[in-house]
Amino acid sequence: MKNPGAYLPIINWLKGYGSDALISDGLAAIIVTLMLVPQALAYALLAGLPPEVGLYASMIPLVVYALFGTSATLAVGPVAVASLMTASALGGIAAIGSPEYVGAALVLATLSGLILFAMGLLRLGFLANFLSHPVISGFVTASGILIAGSQLGHILGIEGGGHNLIEMINGLLRDLPATNFVTLAIGGGTLLYLFLCRKYLKQTLSGFGLSQRAADLVAKAAPVSAVIVTTALAWQFNLGSDGVNLVGQVPSGLPEISLPPLEFDIWATLVPAAILISLVGFVESVSVAQTLAAKRRQRIDPNSELIALGLANVGAGVSGGSPVSGGFSRSVVNFEAGAQTPLAGMFTAVGIALATLTLTGVLAYLPKATLAATIMIAVSTLIDFGAIRRTFDYSKADFVAMFATILLTLVEGVEAGILAGVGLSIGLYLYRTSRPHSAVVGLVPGTEHFRNIERHSVETDDETIVLRVDESLYFANARYLEETILELIASKPAIRNLVLTCQAVNVIDASALESLEAINKRMRDSGIALHLAEVKGPVMDSLSRTHFCEELSGQIFMSTYHAWKALAHSPYWGRDKLHPAATSTQ
Amino acid sequence: MKNPGAYLPIINWLKGYGSDALISDGLAAIIVTLMLVPQALAYALLAGLPPEVGLYASMIPLVVYALFGTSATLAVGPVAVASLMTASALGGIAAIGSPEYVGAALVLATLSGLILFAMGLLRLGFLANFLSHPVISGFVTASGILIAGSQLGHILGIEGGGHNLIEMINGLLRDLPATNFVTLAIGGGTLLYLFLCRKYLKQTLSGFGLSQRAADLVAKAAPVSAVIVTTALAWQFNLGSDGVNLVGQVPSGLPEISLPPLEFDIWATLVPAAILISLVGFVESVSVAQTLAAKRRQRIDPNSELIALGLANVGAGVSGGSPVSGGFSRSVVNFEAGAQTPLAGMFTAVGIALATLTLTGVLAYLPKATLAATIMIAVSTLIDFGAIRRTFDYSKADFVAMFATILLTLVEGVEAGILAGVGLSIGLYLYRTSRPHSAVVGLVPGTEHFRNIERHSVETDDETIVLRVDESLYFANARYLEETILELIASKPAIRNLVLTCQAVNVIDASALESLEAINKRMRDSGIALHLAEVKGPVMDSLSRTHFCEELSGQIFMSTYHAWKALAHSPYWGRDKLHPAATSTQ
Repeated sequence: MKNPGAYLPIINWLKGYGSDALISDGLAAIIVTLMLVPQALAYALLAGLPPEVGLYASMIPLVVYALFGTSATLAVGPVAVASLMTASALGGIAAIGSPEYVGAALVLATLSGLILFAMGLLRLGFLANFLSHPVISGFVTASGILIAGSQLGHILGIEGGGHNLIEMINGLLRDLPATNFVTLAIGGGTLLYLFLCRKYLKQTLSGFGLSQRAADLVAKAAPVSAVIVTTALAWQFNLGSDGVNLVGQVPSGLPEISLPPLEFDIWATLVPAAILISLVGFVESVSVAQTLAAKRRQRIDPNSELIALGLANVGAGVSGGSPVSGGFSRSVVNFEAGAQTPLAGMFTAVGIALATLTLTGVLAYLPKATLAATIMIAVSTLIDFGAIRRTFDYSKADFVAMFATILLTLVEGVEAGILAGVGLSIGLYLYRTSRPHSAVVGLVPGTEHFRNIERHSVETDDETIVLRVDESLYFANARYLEETILELIASKPAIRNLVLTCQAVNVIDASALESLEAINKRMRDSGIALHLAEVKGPVMDSLSRTHFCEELSGQIFMSTYHAWKALAHSPYWGRDKLHPAATSTQ
Repeated sequence: MKNPGAYLPIINWLKGYGSDALISDGLAAIIVTLMLVPQALAYALLAGLPPEVGLYASMIPLVVYALFGTSATLAVGPVAVASLMTASALGGIAAIGSPEYVGAALVLATLSGLILFAMGLLRLGFLANFLSHPVISGFVTASGILIAGSQLGHILGIEGGGHNLIEMINGLLRDLPATNFVTLAIGGGTLLYLFLCRKYLKQTLSGFGLSQRAADLVAKAAPVSAVIVTTALAWQFNLGSDGVNLVGQVPSGLPEISLPPLEFDIWATLVPAAILISLVGFVESVSVAQTLAAKRRQRIDPNSELIALGLANVGAGVSGGSPVSGGFSRSVVNFEAGAQTPLAGMFTAVGIALATLTLTGVLAYLPKATLAATIMIAVSTLIDFGAIRRTFDYSKADFVAMFATILLTLVEGVEAGILAGVGLSIGLYLYRTSRPHSAVVGLVPGTEHFRNIERHSVETDDETIVLRVDESLYFANARYLEETILELIASKPAIRNLVLTCQAVNVIDASALESLEAINKRMRDSGIALHLAEVKGPVMDSLSRTHFCEELSGQIFMSTYHAWKALAHSPYWGRDKLHPAATSTQ
């Protein structure tokens, strides 16, 4: 191995590690740990898993990511959207909370890990690009709504449930009469408290002279105080006997390393869900990591991230944890708290391990309603209705894909939603390129530049028409090109030269080549010459491997202007009188 | 209805119909009928259907197409590839030749017809464009090989069978010991005879003074003589008792009009196959029709063709026929024989009806081996290995899609083959556009034209870099664009201005807009201005609905040359010394 740092980035940054970085990383780790303990429990609840699964997903995966990851500040662990997708994937496989359900969660984490790892090895990170921004944004918004909806039952102390909005509403309406008002008081109270903290605590603390950054961090740790207070209340007043659902006994040891259940059927069933969780988790992680890295002028390597996130998920799967990815809010806190290196993540893992060893007795009294309120406030930042409006204004095609993603995620569930979004965005893109925009262009007077005759005041010529096709020529638009050109010729009886200007043609595939040959043949039969201009290097390379250039009735010009000078307003093809304007352009 | 001719094209051409056209159409119909009788029987055999189904598919559908079709010469009826696809679709549904099998064939024809008709109404003809030329060509070649393979069993007088090459080879090897040598003599003899006719008869006849066209038509009617001779032999020597498979009793009446079986399960099962048969049949029909129409300066309307072919298939389904489309060889013969209007097709239908009423007694003695030999010689023209080579030379992406189509059609069957081809050609197109070609360009001296600095000798400037991205900016390449630009900037320490020249950018979608905003922000932080040039009208319209133009650190120029004049070799952004070459471009 020539450069071990390319495979194990820790080698690069551990060399210059000093006490300053140690203090920064340690401080960041303490803050992130405080934030992560309730989140780990909450996201396990959201995924329908026992609380310890969330804690286990917050230890080994963090250590693994610290070894292989290229982002200094990405905080890996259980996250809201992946937990929702986990619940959706496992719902059809086993009863919530059963050993089979937990086993399937470990399989899902391992599978996602292997898929990400394989994508990293094969450098398939570009696949994530097919999740467009509007689709991701719509998906996250819809997931946020679903997650909030799924937690309403816990706030009300009823069962609720369901994997889409309709099931959830039905479940809530069905169970509403069974509302537990003590639970509602705790859940509603926590919700209100966290809402007020988020809205006003930061300014208030700033008003008391705290630095902006410190105020922000304290405000973000508000859930910890809610956890402490409601746990104390539940213990003091023995709320469990009032029908308030508590987290209950959490095993107080470190996770054991073991293979997830090796049942082929379960693995095979979970592959599609694992692919989606992997892709969504990867896209979200890389976005966060890149945003944070850019602020410090650092770079992350997407393919290395695939490998690191892949190994982290395998780590989760073999140590009793659910799927993990980079969390947005925790990563931001980690960054703001001053984390310098991935060691902050390792310290966080140690913090979670200490919490698991010492706090589980106390956490047994934590009301689930508190966790539900924590989740609801956390996901409220995911819901972005403004993005829907902006997308609508900017591009109708993007909006259609986004809207379909939101609608299908809400009424059919996460998998249908994201598949519809990806399918539609690709389909709409293909549809658009299959009927490309084209324009007859003319010379902008006094320049060598050509513009659409319908938008600009330009010089034109009846016998020489310049057509600009705004798309690569490929199978989906080959026939459309034929029709466009033949119609254009039919509408211009005086035409002698058609110049196809190819500055927007990035490729001519075999289908389009056949169409061009057919067009050339028909035009030659009608006494019209077909010329090309501004053919790009790679396209010319391909064309020169065929007989097309020899068979072309016209010429291939370097620029549209060269073609114009040679053809327009000049005697050509036996023409016997000059156009009045001819002298001015000669 | 303002213009009934738009819906019923027969109204347009029947007005000026005279005796000249009548004679031409009648003559063409006689020749096509002679060709179609053995083909109708043969393609029924290929589809695993009783012979009368092929005859029925050659009556009503031809009449319907004559009423609604826009091509004067397209000869509709049963064709080889659609028959192979029919056999493949029905294979899993019922036993070959059983009443359920025949019923399913009628359902398949009706379904294909309804799909084509609906596509015509919705103007979805463009969907056929997603079958690229190389995919179609590869599919037809592989189908030709499969069809030839499927007929070998009939030539040898054994069962054989199978829907892909591997099954066929296994079937042939298994049954080879049971070869019937009398059948082999007839089949092999016919094969040799037809092969020699095809290769030498035309020249020989021309040598005897026959006109080129007449010689061609006589040579194409060779199968008729083979049918007559082998039928006579089979009757004379009672070959049926020697184990030679004969066509057997064909009901000698006209088809009855009745609905195909209305079993929902069968309809639902056949939908995917019907879609593929529709698309392939449509693409083939339109290609043939357009090629022939162009020779006579006529035009066909693809959406009217969808409706006409759709109704023709519904006509087949309700009159006991299998799916139909425009046949290549028969259409060419129809054209060469001088058919002037679709009336030739109606006359052909009458010819087939007469044959069905009078010849069925005789045709009972026709050996199936003769039909198999007819099919094998007919499909040999479909197999085009040269196209594989040409595609390989021209475009590797097209070749990959073509090769996958051929391979999967051969080893998995027709449906897998065509789906793989379509999927791969779309996938490869998306992959290519997701990593677009880009080039740093410089000014071609003495012009206003810019070209790749690596391919041409051009003027450049250290502080002003012009980047041409050869693709629309959309979700799949948005991240790639960011990486390309940031790497470019990192490699040019003196850069002050980056001009993104957008002549190849036909759209900027919401994802790419976000990327551009991010790029603009990072560049501004580094003190580099981002400029755009040659932004097309539709793209500018979209951008102007956002805040992008206000936030852009640089300017938007009409042309690259305008940007170059304003920025290159000139004091800008506090620059204090002029580049030596500055005066020459000012």
